[in-house]
Amino acid sequence: MKAYELHPNEGFASVQSVERPDPPAPGPHGVRVRMRAASLNFRDLAMARGAKARKSPVIPLSDGAGEVAAVGSAVTRFKVGDRVAAAFFPTWLRGELLEEHHNNALGGSLDGVLAEHVMLPETAWVRLPDSYSFEQGATLPCAGVTAWHALFEAASLKPGDHVLVQGSGGVSIFALQLARAAGAQVIATSSSADKRARLEKLGAKTTIDYRENTNWGELARAATGGRGIDVAVEVGGAGTFDQTVKSLRFGGTMSLIGVLTGVQGSVNTHQVLHKALRVHGVYVGSVEMFEAFVRALVAHEIEPVVDRVFPFRETKAAYEYLASGAHFGKVVIRID
Amino acid sequence: MKAYELHPNEGFASVQSVERPDPPAPGPHGVRVRMRAASLNFRDLAMARGAKARKSPVIPLSDGAGEVAAVGSAVTRFKVGDRVAAAFFPTWLRGELLEEHHNNALGGSLDGVLAEHVMLPETAWVRLPDSYSFEQGATLPCAGVTAWHALFEAASLKPGDHVLVQGSGGVSIFALQLARAAGAQVIATSSSADKRARLEKLGAKTTIDYRENTNWGELARAATGGRGIDVAVEVGGAGTFDQTVKSLRFGGTMSLIGVLTGVQGSVNTHQVLHKALRVHGVYVGSVEMFEAFVRALVAHEIEPVVDRVFPFRETKAAYEYLASGAHFGKVVIRID
Amino acid sequence: MKAYELHPNEGFASVQSVERPDPPAPGPHGVRVRMRAASLNFRDLAMARGAKARKSPVIPLSDGAGEVAAVGSAVTRFKVGDRVAAAFFPTWLRGELLEEHHNNALGGSLDGVLAEHVMLPETAWVRLPDSYSFEQGATLPCAGVTAWHALFEAASLKPGDHVLVQGSGGVSIFALQLARAAGAQVIATSSSADKRARLEKLGAKTTIDYRENTNWGELARAATGGRGIDVAVEVGGAGTFDQTVKSLRFGGTMSLIGVLTGVQGSVNTHQVLHKALRVHGVYVGSVEMFEAFVRALVAHEIEPVVDRVFPFRETKAAYEYLASGAHFGKVVIRID
Amino acid sequence: MKAYELHPNEGFASVQSVERPDPPAPGPHGVRVRMRAASLNFRDLAMARGAKARKSPVIPLSDGAGEVAAVGSAVTRFKVGDRVAAAFFPTWLRGELLEEHHNNALGGSLDGVLAEHVMLPETAWVRLPDSYSFEQGATLPCAGVTAWHALFEAASLKPGDHVLVQGSGGVSIFALQLARAAGAQVIATSSSADKRARLEKLGAKTTIDYRENTNWGELARAATGGRGIDVAVEVGGAGTFDQTVKSLRFGGTMSLIGVLTGVQGSVNTHQVLHKALRVHGVYVGSVEMFEAFVRALVAHEIEPVVDRVFPFRETKAAYEYLASGAHFGKVVIRID
Repeated sequence: MKAYELHPNEGFASVQSVERPDPPAPGPHGVRVRMRAASLNFRDLAMARGAKARKSPVIPLSDGAGEVAAVGSAVTRFKVGDRVAAAFFPTWLRGELLEEHHNNALGGSLDGVLAEHVMLPETAWVRLPDSYSFEQGATLPCAGVTAWHALFEAASLKPGDHVLVQGSGGVSIFALQLARAAGAQVIATSSSADKRARLEKLGAKTTIDYRENTNWGELARAATGGRGIDVAVEVGGAGTFDQTVKSLRFGGTMSLIGVLTGVQGSVNTHQVLHKALRVHGVYVGSVEMFEAFVRALVAHEIEPVVDRVFPFRETKAAYEYLASGAHFGKVVIRID
Repeated sequence: MKAYELHPNEGFASVQSVERPDPPAPGPHGVRVRMRAASLNFRDLAMARGAKARKSPVIPLSDGAGEVAAVGSAVTRFKVGDRVAAAFFPTWLRGELLEEHHNNALGGSLDGVLAEHVMLPETAWVRLPDSYSFEQGATLPCAGVTAWHALFEAASLKPGDHVLVQGSGGVSIFALQLARAAGAQVIATSSSADKRARLEKLGAKTTIDYRENTNWGELARAATGGRGIDVAVEVGGAGTFDQTVKSLRFGGTMSLIGVLTGVQGSVNTHQVLHKALRVHGVYVGSVEMFEAFVRALVAHEIEPVVDRVFPFRETKAAYEYLASGAHFGKVVIRID
Repeated sequence: MKAYELHPNEGFASVQSVERPDPPAPGPHGVRVRMRAASLNFRDLAMARGAKARKSPVIPLSDGAGEVAAVGSAVTRFKVGDRVAAAFFPTWLRGELLEEHHNNALGGSLDGVLAEHVMLPETAWVRLPDSYSFEQGATLPCAGVTAWHALFEAASLKPGDHVLVQGSGGVSIFALQLARAAGAQVIATSSSADKRARLEKLGAKTTIDYRENTNWGELARAATGGRGIDVAVEVGGAGTFDQTVKSLRFGGTMSLIGVLTGVQGSVNTHQVLHKALRVHGVYVGSVEMFEAFVRALVAHEIEPVVDRVFPFRETKAAYEYLASGAHFGKVVIRID
Repeated sequence: MKAYELHPNEGFASVQSVERPDPPAPGPHGVRVRMRAASLNFRDLAMARGAKARKSPVIPLSDGAGEVAAVGSAVTRFKVGDRVAAAFFPTWLRGELLEEHHNNALGGSLDGVLAEHVMLPETAWVRLPDSYSFEQGATLPCAGVTAWHALFEAASLKPGDHVLVQGSGGVSIFALQLARAAGAQVIATSSSADKRARLEKLGAKTTIDYRENTNWGELARAATGGRGIDVAVEVGGAGTFDQTVKSLRFGGTMSLIGVLTGVQGSVNTHQVLHKALRVHGVYVGSVEMFEAFVRALVAHEIEPVVDRVFPFRETKAAYEYLASGAHFGKVVIRID
């Protein structure tokens, strides 16, 4: 089968097209899927850039969708032809995240989905909404499930609450769409006037240019009528932490997701206790969360925002496009 | 001032028009309100019917709205002319319900709101949405806050979840409106074809005639695609308990509110544990819940459903109308 | 191998000694255990009495302990010789109870543990505390995990809280021991003066004769200093429900576990809402809860209370002894 | 009456003895207390050092105990002679912390307790355990309630869990005592061999010299058998944050309390999400938490650890002693 692998090399030159043997026939609980599309996350850029340190090549990308091509003898949940996506952590089925789940992340410790065929246990696959294209389905596993987890598992969002989202990447746009579906009001930040207009079109009540307004946390708080943000979807990390804290109400929740500004940085820990905040680390989510997320997508007919679809052979261009930051929503690769 | 009192008498003959002295000037934290409207709850029928056992007369009704007429010297939250409603339990400000709050319920242990003037501490009043009439405002304190508590405090509703509501009384209709605002899907029961049509118009996904279908719990479950109800707003009490249990998913929540079918009855307790259900007693709510509820009403421009407004002098007719069960939504009395 | 099976017959005559083929060699994830002891629960009496309705024989009992005799090629968590017990629901690993877990209960829908050999996937086995005998280990899966779930998963017990336990069966005694370990104070009911003395010796602060005091709920409340019980471990079911409600504080939790007084009965639903109670259905627990329970047992060196151990050939006598109600703690069968 | 005030001056020279008028007779809900003891917290050192910036003098210290000297006409909860302590935030009665509570902190925005008489509303006072001296009672309001909040409100501690405490200040020692009462095991850090020995005597399972072992987070994790800490009581702040994160299990809780190492600093935010941690800001607690804490103290006969008691006239020496870091437990001032 055709696939990509990460090889030790500079930058995205690490992403290399290869030929691999097809997976064998599924064992009793196995499900083999013919992948049709995959989507890129910020994490994938970091993996590709860090590929020099890898010992052996790995198939990249965690997020993909396709149709079931073969099922094992004991499989009950799927049949050939079903349209599915894989879970980011294939062994995190329910409950809380454990250390052992980290040893089984697609496109990291395990081979990912940028290949014609992927074989995983039936418990690792989730059925796609009927109306979705494979390109749309491929956007869900990481960005979508993360947004769900941030709003409804790490926090308990109520109608009339205010949600803060940052920028226009995949997690932030899903969070905007889901918060709207849950009856919350959304404050969004972006440095691009064009993107702010699009965020407003998607339902953001207020948008803020964080570059022009370095004290954007106070502006976000003011935009709630002074009460403060109830749930902040923090994708920036340490670099945006303090402004996000300013935006939050007393007792508000920060769903801490991102590392866009780095993995370590100076943070005002005193304000966390002064305002009695709850900072909850969010790392994608379980298969059970994925299924709840899909139920909400279907009930609300939410359309994932796909920015651009690249053909399989232009995979490297897709990486470069995401790295440019020009995107609004998800960057997808079609697997023909 | 003009008011009504409950006197020992048969049926609604207990509800008697009286003249009472105006309240005195407010103490430092007092707020005196010129009431403009009050609404009736099922509880008020029971209080009037049971008035024979009362020792001394009490002004009935818990739910009323009006405008601030005078404020004490230390009052900071309101000024003359503000439009407000009173909290059902004026001393239950935050946190959980305590026994001592029960000793302070309007229209029960304390004088209620069916009078020209009501004086309460400033902490017991809640500001109304600007766009609301007093008639609409008077519907919120008991029915509305109960619905809020049932869906968002006793449970944790997520978009895509299924909610069960029973009939077309005040709590059920508010619960339907709030569940829709929160992105949930609603299954509603009613024995009247006309009311079912109106429930669907308000957003119910499926309605069920519980008289024709005594096994309506199974139908409600089927209407969710077989998964079961996530949160049931149980206003019937013991008489509907077992069917509600059938409708619920494993791990689902029953917000137990009502006594429409009586205060005691035969219940299948085994099914509660078999399905790992959570049955949460819900008795109106705190001032803090009331304020969160109002924020949601404003954000979603929810219009309370007022069935009929009676003039002050026809108060007894209002009681009889509610007792007839012909209403859809709230029955209101105007206090001119 | 030697085993017992339930056959269609009157009463405990349904429990019959049989010879069965040994289980085959384990598949990749299988673990075969040489059982050494099993314990009886109230549920097992009901299963045996209802065996007339069964289509095909089943090996009874859910609770057993033994040592690992063989492991599959992919097994990582156990090795031959490890001392283990099986989970009541072998497929309920984590998260909430689902309907599908009910289709996989030992000694019910699946063959149970009253046999020389039992084969289950490695995820269904839990390691025993080192210091435990097999007889002690066999008491944990149903009674012990249920008590853990009732106190620490369905509720959130704090030091200084009050817990109500009923009688001296397995669940109640484990709940007493665990509540003491968590720094709570325990009120226990029993109609036997001898058993009350033993409950006090195990740490109960107050014991109540529920036969002499039919209003024992009020007495239990009084024994807390009037504040009320924080968490009640309700093993009686509908027949004790109303008194338990009386014992609880406003906002208290009833962990509803039992059917000792029947599966259906008259209940005062109004008091549930009047006191804003939380009634949580508790049906044993997950493998994850079992493991947390074992950690607490080890940390506190809690000794399970074994009332009597019967040899394998006297299994029927063990059933009869449990049915007599004379026991204090668990009734165990040794599997030589 | 005799009192101390903070005046604009260098260091602890800001703490000055003054004569103030006695408080007036209590209003209807007022309770006047003759203070008998007060205790110092780290916050008080910061307040005294920062007194140069204050506009008008304030009576310092939040933590004090005494006996009721006079009650207002409407007071029901206390009578003259009752032994009480004041709540740190006198208006935070229940529910979550709000911004407005911060404007009412004793010894900060409000006059504190280092005076012969203190007048507060009855709702701000909490009854002391009968067996406590005033010196012991004075240790509870800030350090004790904070420890309670950190373990049982911000987290949900279970028997067998592991708790991390840092050093031997008031919060850490109360947390150690409460964690033991709740059946948890405690890992404690201290750079003094003598203090480590005393921490072990109080029940710590393992103690670690954090100065000799800069990677003490890993050691703490190892001391749990590798599973990790369930609840960490973080009094250090940003300077200890990363090691605390290392000590925690996946999904563990950090109760973020302290600023001993500063209010801002470099933190590894990525690890918070990698391990799905919950970081909860904890700032003392409500009157309701205080009362629950006292119930636990009484049930477990916990003795507060008082390091040294200074006479009223040596108040400045008490400040200096706390600042020296030589203490183990609380530093108290007697108010004769």
